[in-house]
Amino acid sequence: MRVAVLAHEMFPDRAKTAVGLLRYSDYEVEAVLDRENAGTQVSDFIADVQDAPIVAGMDDAPEVDALIIGIAPIGGGFDESWRPDVRTALERGCDLVSGLHYFLEDDEEFADLAAENDADIWDVRRPHDDLTVAQGVADEVDAEVVLTVGTDCSVGKMTATCELLEAAEDRGVDAGFVPTGQTGIMIEGWGNPIDRVVSDFTAGAVEEMIVEKGDDHDYLFVEGQGSIVHPAYSAVTCGILHGAMADKLVLCHAAGREAIHGYEDTAIPPISTYVDLYEDLARPVHETEVVAGALNTRAVDDDAAARDAVEEFGGQLGGPATDPVRFDADEVLEAIL
Amino acid sequence: MRVAVLAHEMFPDRAKTAVGLLRYSDYEVEAVLDRENAGTQVSDFIADVQDAPIVAGMDDAPEVDALIIGIAPIGGGFDESWRPDVRTALERGCDLVSGLHYFLEDDEEFADLAAENDADIWDVRRPHDDLTVAQGVADEVDAEVVLTVGTDCSVGKMTATCELLEAAEDRGVDAGFVPTGQTGIMIEGWGNPIDRVVSDFTAGAVEEMIVEKGDDHDYLFVEGQGSIVHPAYSAVTCGILHGAMADKLVLCHAAGREAIHGYEDTAIPPISTYVDLYEDLARPVHETEVVAGALNTRAVDDDAAARDAVEEFGGQLGGPATDPVRFDADEVLEAIL
Repeated sequence: MRVAVLAHEMFPDRAKTAVGLLRYSDYEVEAVLDRENAGTQVSDFIADVQDAPIVAGMDDAPEVDALIIGIAPIGGGFDESWRPDVRTALERGCDLVSGLHYFLEDDEEFADLAAENDADIWDVRRPHDDLTVAQGVADEVDAEVVLTVGTDCSVGKMTATCELLEAAEDRGVDAGFVPTGQTGIMIEGWGNPIDRVVSDFTAGAVEEMIVEKGDDHDYLFVEGQGSIVHPAYSAVTCGILHGAMADKLVLCHAAGREAIHGYEDTAIPPISTYVDLYEDLARPVHETEVVAGALNTRAVDDDAAARDAVEEFGGQLGGPATDPVRFDADEVLEAIL
Repeated sequence: MRVAVLAHEMFPDRAKTAVGLLRYSDYEVEAVLDRENAGTQVSDFIADVQDAPIVAGMDDAPEVDALIIGIAPIGGGFDESWRPDVRTALERGCDLVSGLHYFLEDDEEFADLAAENDADIWDVRRPHDDLTVAQGVADEVDAEVVLTVGTDCSVGKMTATCELLEAAEDRGVDAGFVPTGQTGIMIEGWGNPIDRVVSDFTAGAVEEMIVEKGDDHDYLFVEGQGSIVHPAYSAVTCGILHGAMADKLVLCHAAGREAIHGYEDTAIPPISTYVDLYEDLARPVHETEVVAGALNTRAVDDDAAARDAVEEFGGQLGGPATDPVRFDADEVLEAIL
């Protein structure tokens, strides 16, 4: 499927979804919409993903099957400055894919345009209606369940999950991906948006996916969310931890991060504290272990310094570690498989 | 306000809400509806709450201002066998109060009847629309925040919270109650139904209430939910723990409970494990301590045996404990105030 990805004024550093799609999805990205960088190319900013032209708006985009909203402002609202692009896309009969909290399907103008032009709107963050409470049965599936957990939001859990999945598949391992957030859901084309479900159903929404896929693969890689010590999002993390009943955990961290992003009063505790917290909290429901680590070293310029940071991180968590984007995942994969 | 409380076939043991209202609310309960116990009295079953006749249905109930649904089947659905009672109540112009997941306001027949008869429908489990993510500021309020936490669901967290609040007020302490579940919300007449909010807003929905009331009192008693090791509901518990940023915790447990209710594969870990888990998990966001315990000894016939159980529980958690319904709360209150 050919797509255009909207990322106005945020590409690439604040466009997690756009970059994730460029790096891991099967979509052919024909254009990125960013009026601030119009005339450049994706490859001017990021080296190791599919390339595409960056254009000012939908009017300058080539023919595509869908427009994907590739950014998510805090709060998940719709920025009215995007309306002309969305309107143009729908008028051209393109489908619309969005992970915003604001559902585009409920926008009267967009709904009308979609109906007129036979286009579909897929709000990936709208949970389906049949979610319910967990039964505590995710450990009954055949697959070994591997969950990424984090020290904070935006440390690279989804990226690590995708990289480990690809590395495992490269070895011929039969592995599946369980997406829990908007980008993962767009990449895979299915999944429950865990941060948007009724809080009572948090664990149940994860369990449902694991039960659905768990007998089809030897390994399931579950995308984690948030952090167990996040002042706002820990509920989501805790629900995923208990709902997934993971056999192994991979701890993800961003080099240099010292406080919870956006909550500067909340210091990042020592890595060993995270290991203890995740394992101790999981144990009464399902015994698990932090077996490896993934360190996001994007903020570290020098490869040698990045290697040092990875080594130090591995020492702190007591297992192999890597930056799966910058370096290879062999040693980490050994610990998982 | 005079009310009738519907509790068909579940009174009193499976009618947590009905019993909570009889014990702690300011409503004058004029009748309990339970077709299996029609002709008896509340006092035939429970000694220490307001008395009321038990009747077969709304047709036999005296004049009241509202009908309250006082039971919550697993899943929170509406039992169609209750429809005639609800219909009769609305036809008589009574308001309707419900904590079901199924919103009675969205039931076409009930909505029409309410409009015709100028009756209000209050679905207490419908969250308001302005909830958002936590800011991590609940620790900035003047009040000392005391949160009840549990080893499981249905161990008496709401009861303990209400008893401690009353005992504190009896001593002249200026204390407020922060309700987080349907019964607490009905008793207080306000509050966010934490188990029904969007999972991303779990902590934020608690924080909002603490910020709203935290400068009006010297102490806030926050009603906890679920358990941090519950296979289905731990997300809610974790969100309340971090959102409340409590200064002190009271651990609640039911004597004799050996496994998570409904999840018999999940053994209740040692009490000391709960103390460590709650304190360790809270610490990175806000340092807190389990200062006392509340043991529900309803399953223990003999007062002496109940005293022994309370003493053993206190020893396990390392602080004073009581059954606040059966015995006094003095020593526990000393540890809190």
